[in-house]
Amino acid sequence: MTQAQMTATDPYPTRGEVEEVIPRVDPVVYDNGKALGGHGLSKEQVASYEERGFILLPGVFDADEVAELCRETERLKADPSLNGRDELVLEPDSHRARSIFRVHRFSGVFDRLSRDPRILDKVRQILGSDVYIHHSRINIKRPLSGKSFPWHSDFETWHAEDGIPRMRIMSAWVMLTENTEFNGPVYLIPGSHRRFVACAGDTPDDHFRESLRKQAYGVPGVEALRGLVDAGGMAGAYGPPGTLVLHEGNTMHGSPDNITPDARTNLFIVYNSVKNLPADRPYAAPRFRPDFLGGRDFEPLTPSVPGAGGP
Amino acid sequence: MTQAQMTATDPYPTRGEVEEVIPRVDPVVYDNGKALGGHGLSKEQVASYEERGFILLPGVFDADEVAELCRETERLKADPSLNGRDELVLEPDSHRARSIFRVHRFSGVFDRLSRDPRILDKVRQILGSDVYIHHSRINIKRPLSGKSFPWHSDFETWHAEDGIPRMRIMSAWVMLTENTEFNGPVYLIPGSHRRFVACAGDTPDDHFRESLRKQAYGVPGVEALRGLVDAGGMAGAYGPPGTLVLHEGNTMHGSPDNITPDARTNLFIVYNSVKNLPADRPYAAPRFRPDFLGGRDFEPLTPSVPGAGGP
Repeated sequence: MTQAQMTATDPYPTRGEVEEVIPRVDPVVYDNGKALGGHGLSKEQVASYEERGFILLPGVFDADEVAELCRETERLKADPSLNGRDELVLEPDSHRARSIFRVHRFSGVFDRLSRDPRILDKVRQILGSDVYIHHSRINIKRPLSGKSFPWHSDFETWHAEDGIPRMRIMSAWVMLTENTEFNGPVYLIPGSHRRFVACAGDTPDDHFRESLRKQAYGVPGVEALRGLVDAGGMAGAYGPPGTLVLHEGNTMHGSPDNITPDARTNLFIVYNSVKNLPADRPYAAPRFRPDFLGGRDFEPLTPSVPGAGGP
Repeated sequence: MTQAQMTATDPYPTRGEVEEVIPRVDPVVYDNGKALGGHGLSKEQVASYEERGFILLPGVFDADEVAELCRETERLKADPSLNGRDELVLEPDSHRARSIFRVHRFSGVFDRLSRDPRILDKVRQILGSDVYIHHSRINIKRPLSGKSFPWHSDFETWHAEDGIPRMRIMSAWVMLTENTEFNGPVYLIPGSHRRFVACAGDTPDDHFRESLRKQAYGVPGVEALRGLVDAGGMAGAYGPPGTLVLHEGNTMHGSPDNITPDARTNLFIVYNSVKNLPADRPYAAPRFRPDFLGGRDFEPLTPSVPGAGGP
């Protein structure tokens, strides 16, 4: 497909000269949300996700499981083999870990989690197909100094910079510490997944290096945001450790600083439908981001057995 | 009083070599909280303030009054005579107003508000005496980019840098816009007013210029904060426009950034007891801050008549 053809058939053009808010043309839930495994969502849960663009599910992982995930996070933070690698992203004003990417490849524990049927059955149910991992990461919002992140649609970036064609991609994230109203939680705009904010501005080359620390492109302006907030309000993703959040890829979200004395840590896994593989080139960037951000292993995931131990 | 005498008798030494958490020696409520006017707090409200170190009082000012205060704020923001004055404090990374100080002197509307018996009766009841204004300010936390403010005790700064001897000083603040969990609200640590965190570090000369934009001295460390939070938890000061907050000067507080599309604006007035006049020199700074921060007009305030019009 040439760039001209791609633009002609792209329902979500972005990074142009002006910002525009345009309707979503894709379903939110595919194939009527038919359950594809024993750990699917209820009808009511599917309807809530479809309506709001996210759902919080406290208690999916128990305290022992969370403790294991936290130990594994500490191990990765201290792993000298990650030093200097792109997968390790530092705070804008310090040399402390803000994110670790590709954790499902660095760790048997996270690989197993990423294929846990308690996540995978729900994700496949919503996306109506097999899925693969677009990327995974741990986000650590440090005590006192963990920085805010501006509002954005993940899909906007995945489309513009990774070539993901359509809205058939989502995040599942697990709270490894409690997320409270005080510690820099994720705020979401319910219903915002039904509109696409085509953001203004050309994507600079290698934008990802800067954007993972502080995003500057693919960020909506104040008027577009006010329109979304006026329509849907805001919601805070609060919950105890072990809460699973399913988060539609286009749902607008952001987060304030963490000024509390304790870190706020979440694990994110981005699942894409195997029916939504990346195009030959990104839709609005000079070249693809590296594959720790936009995965190129499209093999469908097979469920792991919870609690089965090492990989 | 010489510096040596002052140090010897000072129950709240700070800005030394190490951080220390020491007990408060002063009352929180003076003279048993006896009402000194018709707009005082109830016994239960006094007890709650004494216990927690703050109290939220929604609905003290009605929509028309708030609208007038907002119009007056806009007028001051546009007032060219404030350009370049120290009273106008800008955001650390922009040239937009973050705070306007001394508003009770620049504006008849704010002068009248600062002497409104709905505030003054409550403040005099708590401090058990006549009061004067240590300073006043409007804090505007801008949409999308309004910055966070680290945890601090106001009293620590007023003691160290303005020479306020004892904990007989408090803030009254009025919400001019709604304060929500999302828009960079003030977080407080209930009960923290009963301990004094003596902060480490020498105060640089003219520290106030930097500290009003981003405080770096007089900020407790993570362990002291964790101790206070473990004991008292955290509370968000949320409320509709027109909410009055009474805030003990030593109550630890901070606020995250405002990432919402709308500004969050509050008016603060700091009242000091006439029985707590500043010492001859600051307790832990080379010299006094300027008088827009540490007022030198100790004349007791006389109540205004609500709705009486111009000064």
